[in-house]
Amino acid sequence: MESLKLGLVGVGLMNGSLALDVKNLYNDVEVYGMSRRQTTLDKALELGLIDYRADMHMLADMDVVAVAIPVEATAGLLPQILDHIGSDTLVFDMGSTKVAICEAVAQHPKRNQFLACHPIAGTEFSGPEAALPRLYEGKVNMLCEVEKTRPDLVSKAQQLFSDLGMVLRQMNPVDHDRHIAYVSHLSHITSFMLGKTVMEKEADEQSIFDMAGSGFSSTVRLAKSSPEMWVPIFKQNKENVLETLEEYIMNLNHFRDLMQSDDYEAITLQMKEINNIKHILKPDKH
Amino acid sequence: MESLKLGLVGVGLMNGSLALDVKNLYNDVEVYGMSRRQTTLDKALELGLIDYRADMHMLADMDVVAVAIPVEATAGLLPQILDHIGSDTLVFDMGSTKVAICEAVAQHPKRNQFLACHPIAGTEFSGPEAALPRLYEGKVNMLCEVEKTRPDLVSKAQQLFSDLGMVLRQMNPVDHDRHIAYVSHLSHITSFMLGKTVMEKEADEQSIFDMAGSGFSSTVRLAKSSPEMWVPIFKQNKENVLETLEEYIMNLNHFRDLMQSDDYEAITLQMKEINNIKHILKPDKH
Repeated sequence: MESLKLGLVGVGLMNGSLALDVKNLYNDVEVYGMSRRQTTLDKALELGLIDYRADMHMLADMDVVAVAIPVEATAGLLPQILDHIGSDTLVFDMGSTKVAICEAVAQHPKRNQFLACHPIAGTEFSGPEAALPRLYEGKVNMLCEVEKTRPDLVSKAQQLFSDLGMVLRQMNPVDHDRHIAYVSHLSHITSFMLGKTVMEKEADEQSIFDMAGSGFSSTVRLAKSSPEMWVPIFKQNKENVLETLEEYIMNLNHFRDLMQSDDYEAITLQMKEINNIKHILKPDKH
Repeated sequence: MESLKLGLVGVGLMNGSLALDVKNLYNDVEVYGMSRRQTTLDKALELGLIDYRADMHMLADMDVVAVAIPVEATAGLLPQILDHIGSDTLVFDMGSTKVAICEAVAQHPKRNQFLACHPIAGTEFSGPEAALPRLYEGKVNMLCEVEKTRPDLVSKAQQLFSDLGMVLRQMNPVDHDRHIAYVSHLSHITSFMLGKTVMEKEADEQSIFDMAGSGFSSTVRLAKSSPEMWVPIFKQNKENVLETLEEYIMNLNHFRDLMQSDDYEAITLQMKEINNIKHILKPDKH
């Protein structure tokens, strides 16, 4: 891209990281930021993630607007964002749910300027300070309802994502939300509940500190994630998340029953089968 | 140490890593290995982890014997190992349970030549190929029933562990097994059950591959662990593990109930409290 006016709605981990990369990738970039919290916006300016504070009316001048705020706020604010953009502005979101967000703009006259995205990237941290260069490199970006977006704007998005080093995939919103409940939302609940169980029992924090190896640390890592971001995800994806949770609890109950009846042979068989996950997953890194 | 004859019972991740460090730390080191499987022993020789194959009778000449095999085998073999060692040989184990192992040698005439250890170190991989240099550096080693070990041999162990860069802690076996059930054994079960739940649902492996971010990868990482090592741990620590599992399931049931009744305020409060785990845990690395 020759030049880029980028509007960021939300200036936390996701949009902050996007800004870092875009400033590095293109010569002529201006980044405009919006945030619900003044202090967050100040921090983003101070860190050089954004160049200017923006308001809704300035979105008319943007080439691209990236929305990375909690999913409930995204669904609530998107129609208003579309109301304000220019005739060639591309808007995309980064939410971890896609059904509710796509529904929120389904009837909007500027629906075809919006691309529903879910970059499978992030860390357990949030806010402008959490922004990382090259967060998106090598990561998958799930695009939904691409056929509803104007082809020239899809191309613009594809160029940006490909410049960021992302791998693009397409999926419909219903499938997206069902799959992502398993491979992302459930992991967060299992981590949070592991953290809860251990903290309730281990009143003596020093024991946790001393005995927690890298196994516990990595399994409980997601329990550091922000409820502000995650509760709206659970809410919007309630049916799918509840289904994964039921199945997870069922598997745990079964494991407990096997242990209670000393059926270690069945446990061994089960664990061997689960070991196959090492052939499916990408090599571990984060 | 001037010179060291080190006998390894088991030549996998733990003892293999020990051998790498010891060969690096001391000038005059000879490492003797024993393994149930001939192919494992061959691999350890080929990788240079051990210098010689050993048998029980050669343990008489060892300065130190390190036992790192599944905990059931440790409890079973330790009396026989003690039968064979010399009068100044130190034996220590690395098992993730301590009650059954300490009981197995409680009445042995050479009990005072044994030190019960649990280095909180490791990865999800196993076997000689998994051995890593400096695996133990900066890690905690939990020592149990130190008062039952001959003081000169405790000193020898302390010097070795401190040369490896380990931090030493003491705990009685009962407390150890109860705490470690929470901060280690439970994590393995939650990871395995997460892996199971996702794999059962996601018959299409490509979706997992595409959508699994670093969050899922780290939460499910322990599901790559060896059942050969872990099932005996669950068996030996059955009562504690079952208790942690009951509490974990209870917490999950409660979370599900909160979601079912749309009590997202309670969920938010709970998650905020669990977020405190970030102040307890060491910075994440593995």
